[in-house]
Amino acid sequence: MAIPHALPGQVIEVQPLGPRLPHEMTVALFKAQDLEVMRLVLPAGRSLPPHKVPGEITVQCIEGAIDVTADGQSHVLHAGQLLYLSGGVMHGVSALQDASALVTVALRR
Amino acid sequence: MAIPHALPGQVIEVQPLGPRLPHEMTVALFKAQDLEVMRLVLPAGRSLPPHKVPGEITVQCIEGAIDVTADGQSHVLHAGQLLYLSGGVMHGVSALQDASALVTVALRR
Repeated sequence: MAIPHALPGQVIEVQPLGPRLPHEMTVALFKAQDLEVMRLVLPAGRSLPPHKVPGEITVQCIEGAIDVTADGQSHVLHAGQLLYLSGGVMHGVSALQDASALVTVALRR
Repeated sequence: MAIPHALPGQVIEVQPLGPRLPHEMTVALFKAQDLEVMRLVLPAGRSLPPHKVPGEITVQCIEGAIDVTADGQSHVLHAGQLLYLSGGVMHGVSALQDASALVTVALRR
C-alpha cells in the first residue's frame, strides 16, 4: 500500500511487519534535501539487482536476513544489524529469509 | 565502553541493549563523508540539551521511549518509530524510559 511521504517531525513506524510482510511493498518513507529513507521489503529468495548511488548509504535489517553484496563482497545482516557503504559502490541485496530493511541514502547535491 | 568506528561493509549491532542499557554510553558508530551514525543511550529522566546541526537527521528509537523536542514541538518516539528533522532545527531529546536510539546525521560539506 502506498503511503504518503512523511514530513519533518512526523512519527514513522519502522517495526517489523511480521505476518504482513508478504503483502507489503518497498516504500519511500521520505525524501528531503540531504537524506532519503526507504523501507525495503524482500520476500525470501527475491533480490535487488546490483546498482549504485552517488552518496553513502546505510542498510539496517529490521527482520529476517539479507545478503548485501558490495564490490563483490557478501555481508549477511540479520534483524538489528546495520552496515554502511561508501558512495558509488555497486551493491545488490538478496533476501535469505522474508526480510525488511531500512535504507538511508545520503543525497549528494 | 568505547568501540572503534566501523568501516564500510562492517556489520554493526544495533539491537536493543536491554538490561545492559544502564551500563552503556552513547557511542559514535561511524563517521564517513556524508553520514555520521551514533547510538544515543539515555537512562530514564536524562536528556540531551537543545542543539542543532547543519544537516538533516533521523532519530530512530531502538528501545524505551524518548521525547524529541524540535522547534518547541514535542514528538514522542517508542521502540520501532523514527522521525526526521530538517537541518538547522534546534532539538533536544529526553528519555521517558531507559532508551537507546539510532541517530543518523547528514554531514553537509
